[in-house]
Order: sequence, then C-alpha cells, then structure tokens
Amino acid sequence: MRIITISREFGSGGRELGKRMADLLHFDYYDREIIGAVARGRGLNEYYAEHILENHGWQNFPLTFRSSFHTLDPRQREKVEFLLEERRVVEEIAALGKDCVIVGRNADVILRDKNPLRLFVCATESAKLRRCRERAPEDERLSDKGMLRKMREIDKNRAIARGILCGEPWGDRQSYHLIVNTSDWDIKQLAASLAEFALCRFGGEK
Amino acid sequence: MRIITISREFGSGGRELGKRMADLLHFDYYDREIIGAVARGRGLNEYYAEHILENHGWQNFPLTFRSSFHTLDPRQREKVEFLLEERRVVEEIAALGKDCVIVGRNADVILRDKNPLRLFVCATESAKLRRCRERAPEDERLSDKGMLRKMREIDKNRAIARGILCGEPWGDRQSYHLIVNTSDWDIKQLAASLAEFALCRFGGEK
Repeated sequence: MRIITISREFGSGGRELGKRMADLLHFDYYDREIIGAVARGRGLNEYYAEHILENHGWQNFPLTFRSSFHTLDPRQREKVEFLLEERRVVEEIAALGKDCVIVGRNADVILRDKNPLRLFVCATESAKLRRCRERAPEDERLSDKGMLRKMREIDKNRAIARGILCGEPWGDRQSYHLIVNTSDWDIKQLAASLAEFALCRFGGEK
Repeated sequence: MRIITISREFGSGGRELGKRMADLLHFDYYDREIIGAVARGRGLNEYYAEHILENHGWQNFPLTFRSSFHTLDPRQREKVEFLLEERRVVEEIAALGKDCVIVGRNADVILRDKNPLRLFVCATESAKLRRCRERAPEDERLSDKGMLRKMREIDKNRAIARGILCGEPWGDRQSYHLIVNTSDWDIKQLAASLAEFALCRFGGEK
C-alpha cells in the first residue's frame, strides 16, 4: 500500500495538486470525503463539520489538554472529539489497504507507521491571494485584507490541531519529505513531476 | 541557461545531491570551486577561505551593517569583503551563460534575476549525524555532542551570511521552490528524481 499525505497552507493549491496526483497515479483520493464521513457519523451536516474544524474557536485551546480533558468547555470538547473521530476515519481508510492520496486531516501524523510520502504545499501570500481570488464565488469575495486574515486564521487553526495531535510544529521542514512552493509553477505540470517523484520513492512497493 | 541552486543544512547531503544532479543533467557544477577561486583571487589559501566563511566569528555581527560598514572591526570587515568577492565570482559564473548547479554561496539570492530552480536540502539531526560519522576521517572524529554543536554553528553562520545578503530567513519555505528532507532517502535515487523534476521545471528552456 502506498500512501501520499498532503499538508498545505490555505490557498496554496495543495488540494488541486493532490487530486491531480491521485488521478495520474490511479490512487484513491480523500479530502472533504473524510470530513463528510465524520459528519455523517455524527449526524452533522458537512458544512457544519468543516466549520467546526477550520474556523474560530481554537485560539483559546489549552495546549495541555491531554492531561486536562475534563477541564475543556463543551465546545472545546466537541472539537477534540471531532479530531478523534476524524482520526478513526483516517485509520479506517488506511485499513482498506489501497494506494491513496490524503489531503489534510493530519494524515501524515496519524498514519506515520504506514510510512507515507509526506508532502507539504505552500505558496507566497500574493500567490495564494491570486488563487483564492480566481476561485472564490463572486458573492463571497472578501477584500484582500479580509482574505489574508482568513488564510492566516485557517492556517493557524491547522497548526494548533496538529500541535494537539502530535506536538510537532506544522509546516516544519523536519516533518515532511518534501515541501513544495507552488508560487512559480503550473499546478498541472507540478502534479505530473511529483507523481513521477512519488513513483521513484515507492519503487517496486505495492 | 538553466541554473539550479542548492542551499543546505550541514551534513544533509546537499553537496552530494548537487554533484549527482549536475552529472545526470550534464550541467556544470560549482561548490568549493567558487571558494577556491575567491581565495586565489585574494591570495588566501582555500582552507582559510572556508574557515573564514563557515566558522567562528559571525555571531557578533551587527545585522545593520549596511548602514554602518565603517563601524565593523577589521575581522568583520574581512568577512563582508569576502562575501562581496564571493558574490562577484558567482555572478561571473552565471555570466558564462552555461547550465549549472551551484551549491551554497547564497547563489539563489545573488542570481535571483536569472530565475534559478531553488532547492533547500535538510535532514533530521540523527540522519545528519550518521552521515557526518560515515564521512569524517578517523582522526577528525568528534563526539556526537561536539558534532551537533559544529553542525548548528555552521548552519547558524550560513543563516547569518544569508541575512546579511538579503535579509530573508535561511531555510524558510517561502524562499525556495522545493525543500527536500533527505533523511529517509537514498541520495543517488533522490538525485535522479530531482534531475527529472528539474527538467520538467525548465521545460524547453535552454
């Protein structure tokens, strides 16, 4: 089984990159699907699940929660339960034993013993802003300042969630095989190069 | 002209990676050669040149030197002159107009307008330690602790030199196209993958 995990800064194109790599490699692809499964398992709708994990409210999270789960307020406890549920789903996916690309969800940490190829995708703020502008529906357009604030907040929340799971800093070069900066690249071409690269990494492994 | 610049942590295998990539791509290769040329230009021997740039004495360097070059003491001034001389040599190499790989020497910063493929090579401390152990001559063997101290010091000096040249943090993911962590890889195989990757990047460019 070959697993590629993709962690990414919001707006860096990590999701598109992962989807394209999965298509090229004929690997299964997981991303919002995981969130969806978690949400359905908890009887929540998908939007709410996304909202819980990527938006407000992590900031005041006690980083020592491991030893003080009972001190969390109900909303915080809901988040931790959500992370744990999500972890179970990621483990279930891995247990299927099929080659796959998993975007986000701290899969690199959760599946460390499966030795995944761990990618982190980043870009400059101007490149991410451009990308978000191109993709945001007309009626959801924020100002540049608002968009940057949203980006930073989402990334900060991702960093906090990672910290809770494994204590390692998010986006640190020691934690990934490859950090790819998409700012100067065509994502389609980059996906093809990285797919080749991944095949080299996995060699004859199946 | 296609240029690949390789910045690296001490002991990460960046130099071997660069040499192998240059061989595979039939690119010219520069590394200590540059130091050598600088040293010869200044009538210094090569060992001394390496020593000046990568060892003790940067720590107290005033980071605002640009506006206060005249306040530097003679040894500090010698270092800055050395960096500037080195920059001239890197620029001369680029002026030859030939495809090349340049390891270290802040070539990614110096040649930014030539749009090089910018790689940064890192590894975990345990992997770097293992690598240094394998390569150090018997009579130069330090304790693990001593080796780690040397590693960190050299990297710190590289970070300071970069800061002086461009003000950007060294090893920051925003500054490179790709950060490669060599810890889990065979460098020979990695070089082949990255050479392919580089060719994709440059496309039809000559």
